Amino acid sequence: MTGKPKQYAESGVDFDAKEAGLKGLVGWVRQTFANNPRAPVRGDVGHYAAILELPGESTDLAFSTDGVGTKILVAELAEKHDTVGIDCVAMNANDLVCVGAEPIAMVDYLAVEQSNPEVLDALGKGLAEGARLAEISIPGGELALVPQMIRGVSPGSGYDLVGSCVGLLPKGGLIDGASMRAGDAVVGFASTGIHSNGYSLARKVVFSKMGLTVHDRLEACGRTVGEELLEPTAMYVREAKALINGEVEVKALFNVTGGGFLNLRRLRKDLGFHLDALPEPPAIFRVLQEGGEVEDGEMHAVFNMGVGFVVVVPEKDADAAIAAAKAEGKEAWTIGRVVDDVEGRVVIEREGMRLVSHEETFAAVDAPPAGYGS
Amino acid sequence: MTGKPKQYAESGVDFDAKEAGLKGLVGWVRQTFANNPRAPVRGDVGHYAAILELPGESTDLAFSTDGVGTKILVAELAEKHDTVGIDCVAMNANDLVCVGAEPIAMVDYLAVEQSNPEVLDALGKGLAEGARLAEISIPGGELALVPQMIRGVSPGSGYDLVGSCVGLLPKGGLIDGASMRAGDAVVGFASTGIHSNGYSLARKVVFSKMGLTVHDRLEACGRTVGEELLEPTAMYVREAKALINGEVEVKALFNVTGGGFLNLRRLRKDLGFHLDALPEPPAIFRVLQEGGEVEDGEMHAVFNMGVGFVVVVPEKDADAAIAAAKAEGKEAWTIGRVVDDVEGRVVIEREGMRLVSHEETFAAVDAPPAGYGS
Repeated sequence: MTGKPKQYAESGVDFDAKEAGLKGLVGWVRQTFANNPRAPVRGDVGHYAAILELPGESTDLAFSTDGVGTKILVAELAEKHDTVGIDCVAMNANDLVCVGAEPIAMVDYLAVEQSNPEVLDALGKGLAEGARLAEISIPGGELALVPQMIRGVSPGSGYDLVGSCVGLLPKGGLIDGASMRAGDAVVGFASTGIHSNGYSLARKVVFSKMGLTVHDRLEACGRTVGEELLEPTAMYVREAKALINGEVEVKALFNVTGGGFLNLRRLRKDLGFHLDALPEPPAIFRVLQEGGEVEDGEMHAVFNMGVGFVVVVPEKDADAAIAAAKAEGKEAWTIGRVVDDVEGRVVIEREGMRLVSHEETFAAVDAPPAGYGS
Repeated sequence: MTGKPKQYAESGVDFDAKEAGLKGLVGWVRQTFANNPRAPVRGDVGHYAAILELPGESTDLAFSTDGVGTKILVAELAEKHDTVGIDCVAMNANDLVCVGAEPIAMVDYLAVEQSNPEVLDALGKGLAEGARLAEISIPGGELALVPQMIRGVSPGSGYDLVGSCVGLLPKGGLIDGASMRAGDAVVGFASTGIHSNGYSLARKVVFSKMGLTVHDRLEACGRTVGEELLEPTAMYVREAKALINGEVEVKALFNVTGGGFLNLRRLRKDLGFHLDALPEPPAIFRVLQEGGEVEDGEMHAVFNMGVGFVVVVPEKDADAAIAAAKAEGKEAWTIGRVVDDVEGRVVIEREGMRLVSHEETFAAVDAPPAGYGS
């Protein structure tokens, strides 16, 4: 289990079992990639979105699915359901733009333990707001009343909310990091908090270790636990589209989701990232780290630490990328640069701390790792 | 509550609450239809699949989502998981072809209480087989390990399997029943059993009222309860595509899902259906009806009664439609015809039984309803 995110496994998400299970599942679905010659699958499962090539059309399609996960349990505790719809759209649309696609529509699947009109109305409100922010439609969906299959924090409260999003990817428009090279600027866009990932750990820290309820106030954050943990995921679609369609060569985009800064390793194994100018993480991350006694490495391998989205551009275009985020009201920073590293490591340096990605987490090290930055 | 499917409500699916909840949800998502001018939504939520228009391309897109539902609970009881993936694909792909689209790809969302590699492998096997039958790819998916949100028939056994499917719809190729007229032939394609709908009622009848287990033998069916109830949903994609792309004018297609023959009312409220040549339902339907003392009207408003898919074609082309199904190894029959009826009723006649659709169910009547068939 060396190198696995121990804290996260403790908090109920067993990555090893999940990975073992995924292997079988992925092996089967891989066999389907060429089933339809009118829309062959490009590439492989695992990037932020799948690509379907449409021969004869001017566009290909991007397609992906994601759910809100256990952030929903916090919504149930707080009895506040009008923002997880935004999370649902953001989780999906932010993924789609990472391949260079323009999200166009999302269908939602809502499985409920009970059909509570007030809850459904609130969920719809959030979905509509998310769709507005992502500039997509929600042309349909499915409401499944399956009380024997769903549960939540109290009898009848349970639900699951999932989206599947389709986008247009102009021929030749795939962004997959192929043109990344040492010296490129790594620009981070501010997150609004922990977004929709790491909730197994966050809930364990806040509710179990710290013994708080959603109604308790987090002084460091200036608001309640429920308010902080239900802050909607930031939507990065408009700024990503502006960059992709603009003059800047966007070399890679990363939605910083489960896995935190390990997400940067999704595209290239032969280049590293040196992040030495990360912003000070928002207060919630300090609260979680101190409250849960979580190590630095775990924090950066689970949470976004204040940087919810990353773009890689030529060094000269870093300011343009920052301006694109600011035009949408978000802070942004050049947080580091791409470096040559045959082991494809992510190195984080701040305040005397040096973290180096190692398997599925970050290890703290005292000296620069051998061969790094060569 | 008059006219609602009483038995079905009793068995745990509260349609009234579901409908009240849907109203709020649908009201919100309707506001999103024009959010993206590059892919405006055509029509309205509620048909088998949503249509996204792609200006400038030769094709539009069809998009929909559906889950397997509580058939999964039967799979858990029988500890047999290698066919619900077929159901998942069929529920989605059979919907997409109903609008005239060619399904191209499905993403799957699998929420699990535990990550059991053997179960996931079996689910993948079924998904791959379904994708083969539907001639689609499964380019990606999501595995969510959410034990606090999912439950099943025993601790750790729970999961939910959902698909979202996208298809290509050539410009001008939408099939929506607009050309249907009195005299058109209604052709039914054989189902393989109860498919993936009506499981709340079916489980109640078989497990509670009849006191059977999945391992008990159903003499009338010649196999066990588990085998019968896990029979995969028939895939109608190839025959539907053959018809759509062939010489026959296909005026309407209906996937006979939840709501049974009430599905025929989805497209036109100003035409009726007179079904007077339905085939004898397979044995499982008699078992369920007798075991649950379910009225004829309820049976036809919940189950497919042996007819899993319906196409409407000009009378002269009925044989061609039947031949398309037979080419794929399925029985098919002309089960009735389209009739003029300003109230848009579905009338079923067989063996001295006359059922007339009324709100959300069928009512048994002694004489032809006033105004019918005029």
